[in-house]
Amino acid sequence: MTTPTRVLNFSAGPAVLPLPVLEEIQRDLVALPGVGMSILEVSHRSKAFEDILAKTEADIRALANIPANYKVLFLQGGASTQFSMVPMNLLGAGQTADYIDCGSWADKAIKEAKKVGTVNVSGSSKADNYSHLPNSADLKFTPGAAYVHITNNNTIEGTEYKTLPDVGGAPIVNDTSSDMFSRPIDIAKHGLIYAGAQKNLGPAGVTLVIIREDMLARAAAVQKTLPTMLSYAVHAENTSMYNTPPTFSIYAVGLVVQWLQKNGGLPAMLAVNERKAGKLYAEIDRTGFYRGTAKKEDRSLMNVTFRLSTEDLEKKFVKESTAAGLDGLKGHRSVGGMRASIYNAFPESGIDTLVAFMQEFERKNG
Amino acid sequence: MTTPTRVLNFSAGPAVLPLPVLEEIQRDLVALPGVGMSILEVSHRSKAFEDILAKTEADIRALANIPANYKVLFLQGGASTQFSMVPMNLLGAGQTADYIDCGSWADKAIKEAKKVGTVNVSGSSKADNYSHLPNSADLKFTPGAAYVHITNNNTIEGTEYKTLPDVGGAPIVNDTSSDMFSRPIDIAKHGLIYAGAQKNLGPAGVTLVIIREDMLARAAAVQKTLPTMLSYAVHAENTSMYNTPPTFSIYAVGLVVQWLQKNGGLPAMLAVNERKAGKLYAEIDRTGFYRGTAKKEDRSLMNVTFRLSTEDLEKKFVKESTAAGLDGLKGHRSVGGMRASIYNAFPESGIDTLVAFMQEFERKNG
Repeated sequence: MTTPTRVLNFSAGPAVLPLPVLEEIQRDLVALPGVGMSILEVSHRSKAFEDILAKTEADIRALANIPANYKVLFLQGGASTQFSMVPMNLLGAGQTADYIDCGSWADKAIKEAKKVGTVNVSGSSKADNYSHLPNSADLKFTPGAAYVHITNNNTIEGTEYKTLPDVGGAPIVNDTSSDMFSRPIDIAKHGLIYAGAQKNLGPAGVTLVIIREDMLARAAAVQKTLPTMLSYAVHAENTSMYNTPPTFSIYAVGLVVQWLQKNGGLPAMLAVNERKAGKLYAEIDRTGFYRGTAKKEDRSLMNVTFRLSTEDLEKKFVKESTAAGLDGLKGHRSVGGMRASIYNAFPESGIDTLVAFMQEFERKNG
Repeated sequence: MTTPTRVLNFSAGPAVLPLPVLEEIQRDLVALPGVGMSILEVSHRSKAFEDILAKTEADIRALANIPANYKVLFLQGGASTQFSMVPMNLLGAGQTADYIDCGSWADKAIKEAKKVGTVNVSGSSKADNYSHLPNSADLKFTPGAAYVHITNNNTIEGTEYKTLPDVGGAPIVNDTSSDMFSRPIDIAKHGLIYAGAQKNLGPAGVTLVIIREDMLARAAAVQKTLPTMLSYAVHAENTSMYNTPPTFSIYAVGLVVQWLQKNGGLPAMLAVNERKAGKLYAEIDRTGFYRGTAKKEDRSLMNVTFRLSTEDLEKKFVKESTAAGLDGLKGHRSVGGMRASIYNAFPESGIDTLVAFMQEFERKNG
C-alpha cells in the first residue's frame, strides 16, 4: 500500500486525528485481531466490544484522574443534544440555572435551556462579539442555582478558560467540546462535563459525558417523565448500552486516548499546545499585518482566530493557503476572517509551515 | 497486507457488512482520494463531505424510488430516539396515535409514545410472546388517528410484514430498522419510515428517516417547543446538517447503497434473501429436531429464530457453532433459543455452512 498524500487539516471539527490511530484503524478494518470481524460489524453485546468499552472507560478515568463518584457515559447527538439534556435532567421546577454567555455555542445552550426552565444569564460578552470572556468580577450568580453552565473553549471566537471561574457553590456544568483532553482538567470541580468527540477525542458521532453521582440522583428523580434516550440515569444504569451505542466511534476514541497516554498524558499535551499556539500568536502579533480577534488574556490554545486588513485580502489568504495544502483556515461563516484549529493531533511541524506561509504572504502583500 | 481470517457473523446488529465495502473503507481510511485527509477528519462543511452526503441521498432516492414529496434525513440516536421523536413531532394535543403491538421493540415504542400523548393499541400478539403478527382482521383503528405505527420486522421474535397491513386512512409510521433495503418498499404508502443503520444499512451511529412533507408540516408546527435536536423540521431545513452529523457512518451507508445498486437493487436483494431464508427454514422444518418459533406465514427473512428440545442442547449448539466459526447464533437474552440474522450482506455460502452444521449436530445429538 503506498503512503497517501495528506494535507494539513486546520478544520474546527471534525478535525485532524493522530496518524498512528488512523493507521491502526486501517490495519484492523476488515477484521479485528482475534475477533474475525470488522469493528463495524461487531455486536455491541459481544465480549469483544464490551472489552473495548471497558478499556476505553478505564483509560479515560486514568488519563483525566476521574474520581470514583463520577460516571463516564458515551452518548449520541453531540453537544447540541446536551444543551437540552442538561436542563431536562438537572434543572428542577422552581429552580434557576445560571449560564455564562461567553460565545456562540453558549448562546445556543441558553436558548435550549430556556425551553425547559428558568435561566439567569450571569454575564455576557455578546455585545463585544464574544471577543473576550465575560469579566469574572461582573458575574452575577443566583443563590442556590441548580448549576452554572460555562463553555470552556469557544471554538468560533477563539477564547478559552484556562482556569475555571469562581461561581460560588453551585455545580459547574462545562461544555468542553473543543478543548477536552488538551490540558489537565480538575474533574472534581464539576457537576457535569460534556464534549462532542470530533475535535480532540475522535471522529464525529459520540459525545463524552462525565457526571457526578449527585447530579445523577437528580436525573433519576425525573427519569420516568423524560424520553428514555434523554435520561442520564438510564444511560448510567446501562453503562451506555441501553441501546446500540456508536461502537466504531467509541473504539476510535479509545485509540486516541491510548495515543494521549503514550505521548505523556494531559500535562504533556498542555506543554505542546502552549508551544504550538505560542508560535502562531507570536507571528500574528509580530508586525500588525495580522490582527488577533480575541483578547490576549483569553486566547484559545485550540482555535486561533485572526484577520487581515480587508476581506479581499482574507479571501486571497484562504485561497492561496488552501492551494498550498493548508486546508480549513477560513473562519466560521458567522464571524469571517481566518481560524487555525490546532487540536492535540495537529502536528507542530504544521504550525511552522503555516507561520512560513504567513510570512511569505505578508512579504508579497504587505 | 495479508487477508485476515473472518468468521461467519450471524449477529442481529451491528451485523455483517459487505466485504467490498469494508475493503474500500480500509483502502481510503488514511486519506480519501483527492481530499488528502481521512473521512474521519473531514469537516462536515467541506465540499468533500457535502458531495458524499448529496450522493448518498441521491443514491438512496434512486434505490428505493423515493417520491419528491419525501425528505431523507440522517440522524443520530437509533430507533430508540425515534420512539420519542415520532410522537413529539406528529401526535398533536387531543389526537390519538394507533400502535400495532407486534414485538418487543413495538412495545418499547408504545411505552415512549405514552409519555407524550394518547395511544391506542390497535392489536397485540404479546400474549403469544409475539410469535406471530397480530391478526389483521382483529385490528381496531381510531378514526382520524394521527398515525398508525408498525414494526416491519421484529428482530427479536423473527416475524416480518411482507405486505403492509390495511390501516384505513391514517399515515403509516414504520420502524424498518431490521429489514430496510432488504426488499422493495412502497414509500408512498408511508407517512414516515425510520431505520437504525446497523443491520442492513451500515455501521451503528446513524438513523435513516424518510418523511412525507405533510408530516414535516406537523413537525414545523411544534418545532419551537421541542428540543431542537428532536425536531424533524429543523433537521429537514438544514439537510441533516443542523449540527455535526455522524460523517463516517453516513459515508459507510453510502458505500453500502452503492453495493446494493451494483448487486441489482431491492428486487434482486429480495430474491436472494428469499432463497437464503428458504434454505434455512427448510432445514428447520425437515425432521422436527429443530423447531421454528415464529408462525410460518409471518416468518422473517432477516432473523430466523429456532429452538431445540432442551436448553442444555441449545447451549451445546451455541457453544459448538461458535467454536466452528459460526458467530452470534445465540437468541436475544429476553427469549432464549437460537437466532440466525442473515441480512443482505450475509453470504449465501454461509447459509450452506450453517445448514451443514445443523445436519451434523442433529446426526450427533438427534
